[in-house]
Amino acid sequence: MLPWKGELAGRLDVDVITSELLRDNPLGDPAERPLWVYVPPGYDDSDERYPSVYVIQGYTGHIGMWANRTAYRQPFVETADAVFASGEAPPCIVVYVDAWTAYGGSQFVDSPGTGRYHSYLCDEVVPWVDARYRTLAAPGSRAISGKSSGGFGAMITPMLRPDLFGALATHAGDALYEMSYVAEFGKVVRLLRQWDGDIFRWWDDFRSRTAFTKEGDSELLITLGCSAAFSARDDGTPELPFDATSGELLPEVWDRWLAWDPVRMVDRYADALRGLRAVWIDAGARDEWFLDLGAQAFRDGLARVGVPDDRVRFELFEGTHMAIDYRYPQALAWLAHRLSR
Amino acid sequence: MLPWKGELAGRLDVDVITSELLRDNPLGDPAERPLWVYVPPGYDDSDERYPSVYVIQGYTGHIGMWANRTAYRQPFVETADAVFASGEAPPCIVVYVDAWTAYGGSQFVDSPGTGRYHSYLCDEVVPWVDARYRTLAAPGSRAISGKSSGGFGAMITPMLRPDLFGALATHAGDALYEMSYVAEFGKVVRLLRQWDGDIFRWWDDFRSRTAFTKEGDSELLITLGCSAAFSARDDGTPELPFDATSGELLPEVWDRWLAWDPVRMVDRYADALRGLRAVWIDAGARDEWFLDLGAQAFRDGLARVGVPDDRVRFELFEGTHMAIDYRYPQALAWLAHRLSR
Amino acid sequence: MLPWKGELAGRLDVDVITSELLRDNPLGDPAERPLWVYVPPGYDDSDERYPSVYVIQGYTGHIGMWANRTAYRQPFVETADAVFASGEAPPCIVVYVDAWTAYGGSQFVDSPGTGRYHSYLCDEVVPWVDARYRTLAAPGSRAISGKSSGGFGAMITPMLRPDLFGALATHAGDALYEMSYVAEFGKVVRLLRQWDGDIFRWWDDFRSRTAFTKEGDSELLITLGCSAAFSARDDGTPELPFDATSGELLPEVWDRWLAWDPVRMVDRYADALRGLRAVWIDAGARDEWFLDLGAQAFRDGLARVGVPDDRVRFELFEGTHMAIDYRYPQALAWLAHRLSR
Amino acid sequence: MLPWKGELAGRLDVDVITSELLRDNPLGDPAERPLWVYVPPGYDDSDERYPSVYVIQGYTGHIGMWANRTAYRQPFVETADAVFASGEAPPCIVVYVDAWTAYGGSQFVDSPGTGRYHSYLCDEVVPWVDARYRTLAAPGSRAISGKSSGGFGAMITPMLRPDLFGALATHAGDALYEMSYVAEFGKVVRLLRQWDGDIFRWWDDFRSRTAFTKEGDSELLITLGCSAAFSARDDGTPELPFDATSGELLPEVWDRWLAWDPVRMVDRYADALRGLRAVWIDAGARDEWFLDLGAQAFRDGLARVGVPDDRVRFELFEGTHMAIDYRYPQALAWLAHRLSR
Repeated sequence: MLPWKGELAGRLDVDVITSELLRDNPLGDPAERPLWVYVPPGYDDSDERYPSVYVIQGYTGHIGMWANRTAYRQPFVETADAVFASGEAPPCIVVYVDAWTAYGGSQFVDSPGTGRYHSYLCDEVVPWVDARYRTLAAPGSRAISGKSSGGFGAMITPMLRPDLFGALATHAGDALYEMSYVAEFGKVVRLLRQWDGDIFRWWDDFRSRTAFTKEGDSELLITLGCSAAFSARDDGTPELPFDATSGELLPEVWDRWLAWDPVRMVDRYADALRGLRAVWIDAGARDEWFLDLGAQAFRDGLARVGVPDDRVRFELFEGTHMAIDYRYPQALAWLAHRLSR
Repeated sequence: MLPWKGELAGRLDVDVITSELLRDNPLGDPAERPLWVYVPPGYDDSDERYPSVYVIQGYTGHIGMWANRTAYRQPFVETADAVFASGEAPPCIVVYVDAWTAYGGSQFVDSPGTGRYHSYLCDEVVPWVDARYRTLAAPGSRAISGKSSGGFGAMITPMLRPDLFGALATHAGDALYEMSYVAEFGKVVRLLRQWDGDIFRWWDDFRSRTAFTKEGDSELLITLGCSAAFSARDDGTPELPFDATSGELLPEVWDRWLAWDPVRMVDRYADALRGLRAVWIDAGARDEWFLDLGAQAFRDGLARVGVPDDRVRFELFEGTHMAIDYRYPQALAWLAHRLSR
Repeated sequence: MLPWKGELAGRLDVDVITSELLRDNPLGDPAERPLWVYVPPGYDDSDERYPSVYVIQGYTGHIGMWANRTAYRQPFVETADAVFASGEAPPCIVVYVDAWTAYGGSQFVDSPGTGRYHSYLCDEVVPWVDARYRTLAAPGSRAISGKSSGGFGAMITPMLRPDLFGALATHAGDALYEMSYVAEFGKVVRLLRQWDGDIFRWWDDFRSRTAFTKEGDSELLITLGCSAAFSARDDGTPELPFDATSGELLPEVWDRWLAWDPVRMVDRYADALRGLRAVWIDAGARDEWFLDLGAQAFRDGLARVGVPDDRVRFELFEGTHMAIDYRYPQALAWLAHRLSR
Repeated sequence: MLPWKGELAGRLDVDVITSELLRDNPLGDPAERPLWVYVPPGYDDSDERYPSVYVIQGYTGHIGMWANRTAYRQPFVETADAVFASGEAPPCIVVYVDAWTAYGGSQFVDSPGTGRYHSYLCDEVVPWVDARYRTLAAPGSRAISGKSSGGFGAMITPMLRPDLFGALATHAGDALYEMSYVAEFGKVVRLLRQWDGDIFRWWDDFRSRTAFTKEGDSELLITLGCSAAFSARDDGTPELPFDATSGELLPEVWDRWLAWDPVRMVDRYADALRGLRAVWIDAGARDEWFLDLGAQAFRDGLARVGVPDDRVRFELFEGTHMAIDYRYPQALAWLAHRLSR
């Protein structure tokens, strides 16, 4: 295997979808979105229909990054292909969805702060794919997976739309917000001391220069972006869920975030969760944002509402939040075996 | 000044007080407690009465540590003496109170988990001192100060007993618990993986060997001790405020902790706070437990309930949680000027 | 600008060069190497000849990574193009050279441990490019640049081959080895405790599993690879420059490394350095490997041997070793103005 | 056991010795030095003679710190007493020696930069003790022990004066200087950027304010102090062993340091080392200054020059450089069994 290139046994189509729902989104982000659709080996030689797995990305991820190469590893597009090429798992269509925004992400929700990314994914991308590819267009044959913010998206989307998604894989997905977010808020408050407590002053600066050249750019960006996703005002202005000087949580805003905590959503969406065929949950046991605890709490929630153990695959593996892309094909193979076909 | 010894201009009495309230405390800790009482230069040559400042310690502190010497610095007993010897501030009596427990601290509250340390301080130590020393025995002439858990004690004690304490100084006092404690809980959950999620298994191990030789001993100890202080069952057993496997907060237990968050106590004790003559609040701007934010939030709370600005001295100084004992004499001098005499 | 794609004003040719010198290299790495050659806007419409800038990569870098996209930034291939497209600097040909090995890098030297990468670069790649592209094939019109190990290569190659390269840019290039390498050796010794002090036992393990899933993989890899580059035995076996149990430097092996320290090479290659037209040296002032100090020491060395100040551009910028690719186009533009045309 | 006090079975005399050799030392430090001499239980009821163990301290340590109390532990004065009181080891006299200087330490060498601390220890303190206490005044009955810089002193003193000391214990003693010091130099160079590269500008500042309130105070202090000990000019001015701007080692100065590296002294003092009865060497396996590697290299050196294995006790224990005082009584007991009596 040459490190600088890989061959696919299947085929990757680089498509573009024109979204009506993202048109005139508040950040002026493009409504024409790239969409990569992978069809497995044998697809072109048969008229079989296949289960589909939708793949979404972590914060600051955009679709072009799926092609990034790192030392001694292959991109997921290639390791995903290998799952099917090797016969390790039965074939699926894999759909790589872009949900980038100017703030670095959308959290895959509909928000006046960023746009209607949840609806775009569910009501535009899925039908678009089903119309153009030989999918098995039923929830039992459709899964969603992702890491970090993508893992969050993979947890919430089937809760909201069990009519579409019947399986999921979350790798270090955002959850248990008091553990994963609050310490970030503390850092943000300190960083904002140099911006008079005004995150928009930082944002203006950030956009005017090379990104990520100042300490704290990452923490500030994700806090602003999640505020846009979870707690934007009706006019689209993101509201921070804490006092920008003291870090004290603002209950009325923070509650809007907590309403999106997968751990807290479990009881509300228990029926949807009980209907899932397969749920893969993992995280690095030393995740920098304690998302191993979020994973554990989400898994405990599934047990509490009665999701049978044999539908859940749970693992806290040795590792951090970083460089865990090698877990993705493992989850993909596991899902591929469990999707209805 | 020789680094290995210092002379006092005043006099330090090393006393012992026999506490009725600590007798038969649940941890079997001594009811005979050391008490150091400092009288300023001139005390023995006059019959003047003096304001008093009670000094309490941070977690794992016991009274003997006040004699510890560190490089290039003097112990607080000596720098406190220098405040008066130099004429920087008018003379006070300084009372060093011990509230150590087998868990490393008491948080200066009454608890079935540790003992009645709040009452011991207020109903035994204060009268004992007033009976034996020429104090001005009125709240306007009595202050309390401390760092970290001692800062916490310095915040809550005057709220609970405005009839006793009319001024306070808190250095990096525990406050804004979602910021200062929750990340610790995350670490504790991970540490407990090797103890089957049972903190008492760790505690048994901790007591059987040299302390602080295993990673996480500190985090586990303070979590156990604060659980004993804030959320012990009636039989004295400490209850953790979170699920020991997932870190998920247990609302009914966590609420008991939050009831002791100084930031959240402000509104409940607004009258007491408005009656204070002087409040010193500081913290290192890079405090490892975000206690700078706790300090800010407490200070904001005072403003909110109408404590006049001219009674409050607030500063976030460059520094961390460590090696900030040089702040203590600054606060002492400031208080000494404001206490009624 | 869409985050997921960029257009070039110039043209990037993705070539392959078949190296005779790398044939039968000791690691069995490919002798057919990718080579990317960029020609600036206007190249195809003229018969002008252009200066050329060779670009090499840091440790574990291979050519495919130049296409990687990161959040809010463009790949260097695009920012380099923009330098010329915008008119910021006069046009150059830019050559992206691959020198990857199974150990993650070659340090751009000839070694029995990895292969003849220095000669491949100088005696094969340069003539290949000059034969196929309208370069100005003189040292005053040819530069080399890189970051980290690539910065090292950019420092040493013109010293060794002033007949080929008359200018260079080093970003955080490896230098001042007692500062940059020795602490790594200390970490490696500790890591080797679990491998019986035998780095080849680790290497066997590393190759048998997903890379970079064990702590210390990075440190072990670079130490092994640099030993292969700098201190391989005649039979190709890498020799560590330190005792694997104690970390004590082995002078006879360590001296082979020091012979490749750019700071120590300055005096030996003073004539070559005095002949350079332009030398860009920079590093992040908080570089994790103290390469800011290496940069300073190299710059001081140039002054000592009489390289005129007006040929040197030196800067320690605010930053670390990471995410400093935005410096590359700045150096490229600076070189482009100084190369002979 | 009360945490705030301990009783001794033996007796601790707090003496003062007036040193002729330290009179008029270059830093103006006191020539009258405290000296603590401990005699074991039974001493006053017999006329027996006892082996003696001299105890010296780490950098910034002064004798008063032996009385410091830390949570859940007892001071070494008490744990040392317990070794004898419990019968774990036969009785010894223990001598606590002060070698503090204005720079925080002396490294227990004679230097024009600090004073004649080596000679003071060997030619003044030892005879003083032997004259006043019933010691067995022969090298086989005299040991020296210490931690960190004190461990360094414990390694070098018997090498220099085998006529006095016949056994030693070093806990994380300074050794293998390229590993333990050079990274510190790198930090110092960065810190000196704000002091125009002049460590004396920092020193003036340090002395004018509360110590250890600025980042890097510790690194700067120890670097200055070791320069005073190892590489002072004849006029007493400390010379840094590296270029203050680039960190490049200055061979002529650095060699003066290396001449004091215990690892490098082994061969020079092989005879003295072969004459030792007992050598305890330990360090935390994660020592922040890689002193575990220094310990290993020193131990390997002893084997190389033929010190029999049965005279050496070597251990890398789980831990760092901090809070390892619980190792001291273990070494003391081990030495007590091996000293001639």
